[in-house]
Amino acid sequence: MKHILVIGAGRSASSLIGHLLAEAGKKNWKITVADVSEELVLQKTNGHPSARPLVFDIHNKEQRESEIRLADLVISMLPAFMHKEVAMDCVRFGRHLVTASYVSLEILALDEEAKKAGIILLNEIGLDPGIDHMSAMQVIDRVHEQGGSFQSFRSYCGGLVAPESNDNPWGYKFSWNPRNVILAGQGTAQYIENGAYKYIPYNRLFVQTEKIAVDGVGHFEAYANRDSLSYRKPYSLDHIPTMLRGTLRMPGYCNAWNVFVKLGWTDDTYRIADSAELTYRQLLEAFLPPGPGPVHERLKMFMGHELDEDSLEKLAWLDLFTDRKTGVENASPAMILQHLLEDKWKLKTGDKDMIVMQHQFSYQLKGKNHQLISSLIVKGDDPVQTAMAKTVGLPVAIAAGLILDGVIKLKGVQIPTHREIYEPVMKQLALKDIVFGEKESVS
Amino acid sequence: MKHILVIGAGRSASSLIGHLLAEAGKKNWKITVADVSEELVLQKTNGHPSARPLVFDIHNKEQRESEIRLADLVISMLPAFMHKEVAMDCVRFGRHLVTASYVSLEILALDEEAKKAGIILLNEIGLDPGIDHMSAMQVIDRVHEQGGSFQSFRSYCGGLVAPESNDNPWGYKFSWNPRNVILAGQGTAQYIENGAYKYIPYNRLFVQTEKIAVDGVGHFEAYANRDSLSYRKPYSLDHIPTMLRGTLRMPGYCNAWNVFVKLGWTDDTYRIADSAELTYRQLLEAFLPPGPGPVHERLKMFMGHELDEDSLEKLAWLDLFTDRKTGVENASPAMILQHLLEDKWKLKTGDKDMIVMQHQFSYQLKGKNHQLISSLIVKGDDPVQTAMAKTVGLPVAIAAGLILDGVIKLKGVQIPTHREIYEPVMKQLALKDIVFGEKESVS
Repeated sequence: MKHILVIGAGRSASSLIGHLLAEAGKKNWKITVADVSEELVLQKTNGHPSARPLVFDIHNKEQRESEIRLADLVISMLPAFMHKEVAMDCVRFGRHLVTASYVSLEILALDEEAKKAGIILLNEIGLDPGIDHMSAMQVIDRVHEQGGSFQSFRSYCGGLVAPESNDNPWGYKFSWNPRNVILAGQGTAQYIENGAYKYIPYNRLFVQTEKIAVDGVGHFEAYANRDSLSYRKPYSLDHIPTMLRGTLRMPGYCNAWNVFVKLGWTDDTYRIADSAELTYRQLLEAFLPPGPGPVHERLKMFMGHELDEDSLEKLAWLDLFTDRKTGVENASPAMILQHLLEDKWKLKTGDKDMIVMQHQFSYQLKGKNHQLISSLIVKGDDPVQTAMAKTVGLPVAIAAGLILDGVIKLKGVQIPTHREIYEPVMKQLALKDIVFGEKESVS
Repeated sequence: MKHILVIGAGRSASSLIGHLLAEAGKKNWKITVADVSEELVLQKTNGHPSARPLVFDIHNKEQRESEIRLADLVISMLPAFMHKEVAMDCVRFGRHLVTASYVSLEILALDEEAKKAGIILLNEIGLDPGIDHMSAMQVIDRVHEQGGSFQSFRSYCGGLVAPESNDNPWGYKFSWNPRNVILAGQGTAQYIENGAYKYIPYNRLFVQTEKIAVDGVGHFEAYANRDSLSYRKPYSLDHIPTMLRGTLRMPGYCNAWNVFVKLGWTDDTYRIADSAELTYRQLLEAFLPPGPGPVHERLKMFMGHELDEDSLEKLAWLDLFTDRKTGVENASPAMILQHLLEDKWKLKTGDKDMIVMQHQFSYQLKGKNHQLISSLIVKGDDPVQTAMAKTVGLPVAIAAGLILDGVIKLKGVQIPTHREIYEPVMKQLALKDIVFGEKESVS
């Protein structure tokens, strides 16, 4: 019997735990589901015979060590900054670790020791990062093996709301960490286009967008992700002339979001005086240049040609021009905005979210130019079994199984750009209807 | 005989050390001038009989402790983040400390211990912070004592170039830390106007400026300083309806600087690929949206109505539209910009800088409305004895003398908002022609 310890039983762990439990009988697994919240662990294990619910404090060294020692493999769904202690214990006790988070420098530093301990610290095996790596590498390795060379790789992903549940003017509801949505894009986006490095600072990230069409679900707009350049090396595309990663939103979202950027409402570095007592109208007033007239007219003047009627409607729908109080004590602008949007952009009973991912490759092979578009569309079942929970959690669960089965033999700190990982994981994801459609044209 | 230890003999310490040495004979002082650079300490002490040059490493604990123990009073002109160790030693050995830096939380935490040790840790006694506090408190205390109450306090300061040395289109040359000029204003500026809190994010800080006239030196423009609100309490203006602090620049500077903000050239958080090899034209290209035409035309289109011909001329004068290489390896945009401006905005032999400070008070007294404008203009002698070095260094030197003379008796962590400090310091500054002119109208 193999023991799997899942640390973190929150929103993104639903499908993960569900999959592990469904396989547990056949595979002879014991699944410990650990979280600080007793309610969550009881709910997620739901009396399953292979499951052991565990109230767990990651900062309790003794408990952490003894639980990790008990396990053959640990899955950490904690926030990324909390992985370090877990990873160090895994190395010490020779236990495999799987996470959906970006490899931090701290984790990377454990590579040698993990190899010595004969274990894998597998990271970035969720959706983005995760499925993006695996699906891209399927194409890249195939083309490289055939002798082709890439001119361009553009990759887009969005965690969106399904068209049938899209009943607000923003075309957006939260299916993952709201804070990350509010703070997204701060800094400068970097990519390369036709051999020239390109940079887009935050103040025009949501203006300098592009239109993306995805068969079957229509049109989206995309803004550039922070650092597209760092993906060239792990993807074996070191000298590719064009490489861009972007985030998808419904058309019109970015234009309206740009109002918050320009107002300064996504700043999380200071607290607004008397924040709870302010109405949204007063808050707007506080950020607008002085002048006469009602606040929505002033906002129009302030934004100039950058503000269209659709965006104004989106902002009005958020109650921004009303006397509704923010109700958030000692809050930064970003905290106030998050509080409002968590109310307005909530997935309701019956709502479905939707993941859209699209890779656009251009490559030359045997003297011909190939355009290959590879797209993934996944819809959620409901506000718990979301497309986000499935696409983040299932690759983690599947990879965990493949490690225990000895199919994935790699050791040390890894991300799923290796065929040994992505091939069997993508095969099993296809059984769950997580499968890319390809469309290719040759000229 | 009293010993004064001056740590840091850089640019801003010239007038400070000069003043101490000039007073040393009469006062029976011994002045130790300590710096990592032997050249600097020899140059600044220049064989003066009361001076002792000392090559000094702040990180050498033994040397630091023994030198601080030798002194009766320590002056630290180190960068602010290096004061902590010095302050802790001063508390331990019961030595007074004077700095021109903002009180950090680390320094503030030493208040109790400093009081027990019977010493003062006097900070913020340079120009800004320093002369701004003292000159403001002179007026504020006087009006409060007469029974007046303030409606408005707006305070502006700029370290500029003197009109007779103003020979570049920006009207600006560096007289202090260039890096701080490049990064100035990042975040969100906060102030209060007519009882309403107002916020200006960085992306429009240099657009939302005001015009300020200063008798004798003409017109300036001002952008809001980061946090004007925190000054209300130390100034005893807790409930003032309008309070704003701003930075002065020559008219047109802000409009042109806004191009750098909007391009993203003041970002210091990441490094540009192949930065040294890029020409400024290529660097501009990398930050502009794609499109046809020469780069300066593209920049015009990009900035739209926000870019005037004067600003374009300022940018052209910086060689931005040329094939000049940046020549800075592995640099952030901010580092490249600083490198360029340090070349272009250098004070030349014979150049004079200029400090301009203006306080605008509105207050009610005995049923009348008073408008009081208090202004300071100080010009430098040359590129070494700058107005900046004088206005930063002289208050420090004067306060040090007043502490040793027992005129300043306050203990613990202090800033010069107390009459016991500002009155004698401002009196001595007046002897050095650092004196405010006042203009008042009553209605």
